[in-house]
Formats: sequence, structure tokens, C-alpha cells
Amino acid sequence: MTDLFSKKIAGIAPYTAGEQPSDRSYVKLNTNENPYPPSPKALEAYRSFDFGSLRLYPSLDMRALKEAIAKAEGVSPENVFCGNGSDEVLSFCFPAFFDPEEPVRFPAVTYSFYRVYAKLFGIPYEEVPMLPGFAVDVQGMTAGRGGAILPNPNAPTSLELPLAVIEDMARAQREKGRVLVVDEAYVAFGQEPSAATLVPRYDNLLVTRTLSKDHALAGLRVGYALGQRGLIEGLLRVKDSFNSYPVDSLAIAAAAAALQDEDYFRLRRDQVVRTRDFFRQGLLERGFAVLPSSANFVFARPGFCPGRELFAALRRRNVLVRRWDAPGIEEYLRISIGTQEEME
Amino acid sequence: MTDLFSKKIAGIAPYTAGEQPSDRSYVKLNTNENPYPPSPKALEAYRSFDFGSLRLYPSLDMRALKEAIAKAEGVSPENVFCGNGSDEVLSFCFPAFFDPEEPVRFPAVTYSFYRVYAKLFGIPYEEVPMLPGFAVDVQGMTAGRGGAILPNPNAPTSLELPLAVIEDMARAQREKGRVLVVDEAYVAFGQEPSAATLVPRYDNLLVTRTLSKDHALAGLRVGYALGQRGLIEGLLRVKDSFNSYPVDSLAIAAAAAALQDEDYFRLRRDQVVRTRDFFRQGLLERGFAVLPSSANFVFARPGFCPGRELFAALRRRNVLVRRWDAPGIEEYLRISIGTQEEME
Repeated sequence: MTDLFSKKIAGIAPYTAGEQPSDRSYVKLNTNENPYPPSPKALEAYRSFDFGSLRLYPSLDMRALKEAIAKAEGVSPENVFCGNGSDEVLSFCFPAFFDPEEPVRFPAVTYSFYRVYAKLFGIPYEEVPMLPGFAVDVQGMTAGRGGAILPNPNAPTSLELPLAVIEDMARAQREKGRVLVVDEAYVAFGQEPSAATLVPRYDNLLVTRTLSKDHALAGLRVGYALGQRGLIEGLLRVKDSFNSYPVDSLAIAAAAAALQDEDYFRLRRDQVVRTRDFFRQGLLERGFAVLPSSANFVFARPGFCPGRELFAALRRRNVLVRRWDAPGIEEYLRISIGTQEEME
Repeated sequence: MTDLFSKKIAGIAPYTAGEQPSDRSYVKLNTNENPYPPSPKALEAYRSFDFGSLRLYPSLDMRALKEAIAKAEGVSPENVFCGNGSDEVLSFCFPAFFDPEEPVRFPAVTYSFYRVYAKLFGIPYEEVPMLPGFAVDVQGMTAGRGGAILPNPNAPTSLELPLAVIEDMARAQREKGRVLVVDEAYVAFGQEPSAATLVPRYDNLLVTRTLSKDHALAGLRVGYALGQRGLIEGLLRVKDSFNSYPVDSLAIAAAAAALQDEDYFRLRRDQVVRTRDFFRQGLLERGFAVLPSSANFVFARPGFCPGRELFAALRRRNVLVRRWDAPGIEEYLRISIGTQEEME
């Protein structure tokens, strides 16, 4: 049947997401979801939403959502772009800011969707080898002529770069007139401030976020980017060349309400961070090597058996975690932080 | 600021959607929305949805939705692909089935998003000139080496091709091993059966649909494609190279419920069709030229003043319709069918 495929799609290896079993009997620690429910204010927005209004297309500029994000982030709505999860926002960055003549750079161990986006949009890429201990090679990331993208904290390593280092990268990219994208899916769980604080000073810096992890709204599909107006305009051009309304009306309303509930956000984030530190300590005591985590997951290598064996043993006990058969990380498991009870 | 844009995005002219004023004082006849609310069964699904489950990512294979579509269409779930509105599904067709070496063909007067998708994904295209009376040049559509895409009924002309003609095109495309995409956003309002009935016989035929118009769920963002397994696999490869979960959990549940409510669907469709025929007759009596409509809108040229003037006069009276400043259609207005009361 592939004689009907384009050459591009015949040769592509799509991203493989963690499994989403419909059967709820698993302890699901494989996709970095939040173990707690979304904000009660989001639920209120959901209950009071006018269902009949779904006959109309969503707001083209998603004003209510942009305003809630701008308020939470201390920026203006013009500095905000919204999309269908940060995956959509990140994928839009490739045609918006990267050219086929210059490879985009990202760390060799990182979110594996970046290389798939690059292939889909025909952008060459360079995977910058990690330094010992899975450290990001910051000089290597900005050595080339092209754009650069990395998560901070990184996934699946859970390691965080200081804001000052992100600023050095933004400056190096600015000097050659190229964009730096910082994917902050996990920033809420780290110690460093968001790179959004640098946006006023770097017109080439784009910061992406998702409501999937820290706001417990993975099922609603809302992500966003923060940047100066030029970069936001670039993303709008891609969106408007692809799908005018990628975020549905209800998601706009419920996400805006969730973002306004900062107390609930902090309460749940602190719970996850406490459980993570408790869980990491427990793994260390049991002989695991565990990287220091600034995320809502840990990246751990059992000292006592191969990673593959532990993965299989956990699965037999109905515990789902994530593991990649990739050189350098095949002994590691990425374990999302569940409730305190699950992790005990 | 455009020095930070990719060359592609610096040179692209995005699609312009009809305006979505937040102010509800307009009679909104500009984006072919349904004037009636969605199915009460969709509302029930919405009310009984487990809000807390939004902390989890949506089902990766959207099984519940695919099964509802398969049942409504008389196909198997393996013949169904779901996306964020049919716009997303249509855009995926370009990287999935069309190559940069062969122009894809579509009618010169048609949905203007096609040429934007082609530019975004680097696919050359040929706009096949219309025959007199805005008829699609069927031979011209399949004359080249590449793929072909067209809406049936066409937009904004509202004209429908007989199923037998669609089959001729599918056969011609099959003979050269190329795909035909039939965009059936408006098929429910026409007289002809859906081209989905041809899918079992043509492995190169993909039919797209949306719940935005006939199911009054534009705000929910659900569209789908029907095809043999090979073509569905091609679309899955693009989706999984772009965004693993483009349809949110609630949209999956509510759309599945709406599709099961066939009585309500037929009731509302028949109301729209009756109002359309009443409205078209009224326009003819007032001196308009109006194409025969198989859609939930009419394409009409006032005999008594320029299209531009009527458009502006309606806007002053808070009636929004759609008009394009494009050669050959600048005298026409596309007017969506509202409620009987609005159209009177």
C-alpha cells in the first residue's frame, strides 16, 4: 500500500507516545501525567460553559485564554501563542524558524519528538552529544549557524540548566540572528525561574509551556508559547497555514480558569515535588542510580539488574513506566511521579 | 522582525478565516456554522463526562470515536482517521500523499486553504480553471501525474458533482497510482450519496468529513477521514510525526454521542435544507443570480449592485456574510443558512 504514500512519509519513523491503556487497572507512571485532578475552578468553568455555543467556531484569537496566560506570566497577550498542547506549538517552530540550509541543534538525549518534527518539515538537524552525567553541552548547542531547541528541565534526564546558562545560549543565538526555543514542559517542578523572564530582552527567545503536566489537563490539549511579537507572529503564520482553530472552545474556557487558580497549582506542585524527593531517596537506598530531578519524573538505573528486566517485571505487576532502547540510556527507566500512596 | 522567520514562513500568505466576533449582536452567516444547537445526546455525554479524567492524555487510538464513526458510515474502525477538524485532516493529506515532484490539482474556485497547505508542506499545485457556470473540469482535474483534491459539494460555489463522476476521477487517479481526496464537509446537505460508498473499491480514495457543519460542533474541533487501511496508515504517520493527541478527551466523547443521534441529525439537516431552498427562491425573486445549492450556504450575485457594496451594506446592518476579492467571484457573496427566522 505504501506506493500511495509520499516519499517523505514512506521514509519517516513517527514518534511513539507512551501507551494509554483503556483499562484503568494499571499504576500509570509512563507519560508524566499529574496524579491529581485539575483545578476545581476549571471544573466550575466546565459546568457553566454554554454547551449550545459549540455550534460556533472557537474564538479565532483565543482572547480569554491569552489574557489568563498573560496575567499568570506577567506579559502582554501579544506575547502569547496558544496551540493544541505544547507538541503542536513545538512542531510549528520548525517551519516557522528553521530553514533547510541550516541544521537545527538539540541535545542527543532529549525529547525524541524533535527529530520527528525536523523530518516532517524537511529541516536537517544535529544531535549535540551529551557531556558526562547527561549534562547538556551548552557550547555545542550554539556552535552551528542554525536554530537551537532544548527542554529545560531536560527530558528524560530530569536535569535543569541554570537560567544564566539559558541566557548565555539566547545571547549566542541572538548574535548570529537565530532562534532559541526553550521547552519548559516541566519548569514548574524545578528550582530555576522560567526563561520567560528573559523574553523582554531577547527577541529571538521562544519559551513553550503545557497545561498537561503542572495543571493536570493533559486530556484537554492546551499548550502555549511566550515570546516577543515577531516570534509570535511567525507561529501565527504557521497556524493559519494549517488549522485556524486548533484549541476548542471548552478547552479555552477551562484552561483559562485553571491558570487563574494559582493557589491550587502551587498546592499540587508542592505535593508532587515532595513525593518525588521521597521516592528518589527510596530508590537511592535500594541501590538505584538516580539523577537529581527537577521534573515530575525521575530517571533511574537499577544497579542490581538490567533496565529491560526491571521494566518487564514492573509491567507484570501492572506498573507502567517508560524505557528507550537507545544507546547510552537503555539501562534507565523514566518513572513519573504518582500520588504519595502509589510511590510508597 | 522577519529576519528571524524561516524563508518559507516569510513568504507565505496564510488562510484568512471568516471573522468570529466575540460580540453576539451579529447575524452570523459567514462561516457556514449550523444555526441549531448540537444533539441533546452530545450534551448528555458532556454532562456525564468524568472531568477528573482530563489529568490523563486522551486515548491514543480514539477508539470510542472511531467506532461511532464506523457504525454511522458502515465501515470498519480501521477505515477511520480522526483529527482536529477536517482542516487538520486535509492538511495532513499534503505531506502524506503528495510529492514535491508532482503538482497536486484542485479547482481554481474552491476552498482556499488547499493552496496554503501546499505552500506550507512544499508541494507544487495546479489550479484547474473552472468551466462555464463554475463547473469543475473533471478531465482537467485528473490530467496530470500527481494527486488531486476537491470538495464535493464544492465551496464556495455550493455545486455538487454526481457520485458517478467522482468514481470516474477515482478510477483515473487509480490508473496512475495517485490519490484522490474528496472533501465532504457539506455532503449532508446535498442530493448525492457520499463517496464513502466507493471506498471499498478504490484504495486511492480518501473522503474527509467534519462535525462542524452538519453536527453543529464547530467549537469542538472534530473531523475525520474514511479510506482503505493504507491511506489511513499514511495519515497516522503524519499525525504521529506532529502531535500524538490532536483531539481532546471530551471532544472524543461528545462527538461519538452526536454521531449516534441520527434522528436529530436528520431533523436539523432537513430544516437547514428547507430554509436554504426558501431563501434561494427569495433571492431569485429579488433579482439575484444564485447557483443551485447542495450545501448549507448559497453563492449569490446581486444583479442590482456590486457585490462589494451589498457586503458592506449588510455589515452595517450587523449581518456578516463572506466575500472574496478574487477574479471571477468578486461579485458573489457566500451566505450561510441561518434559522428560518434569520433568513426571513
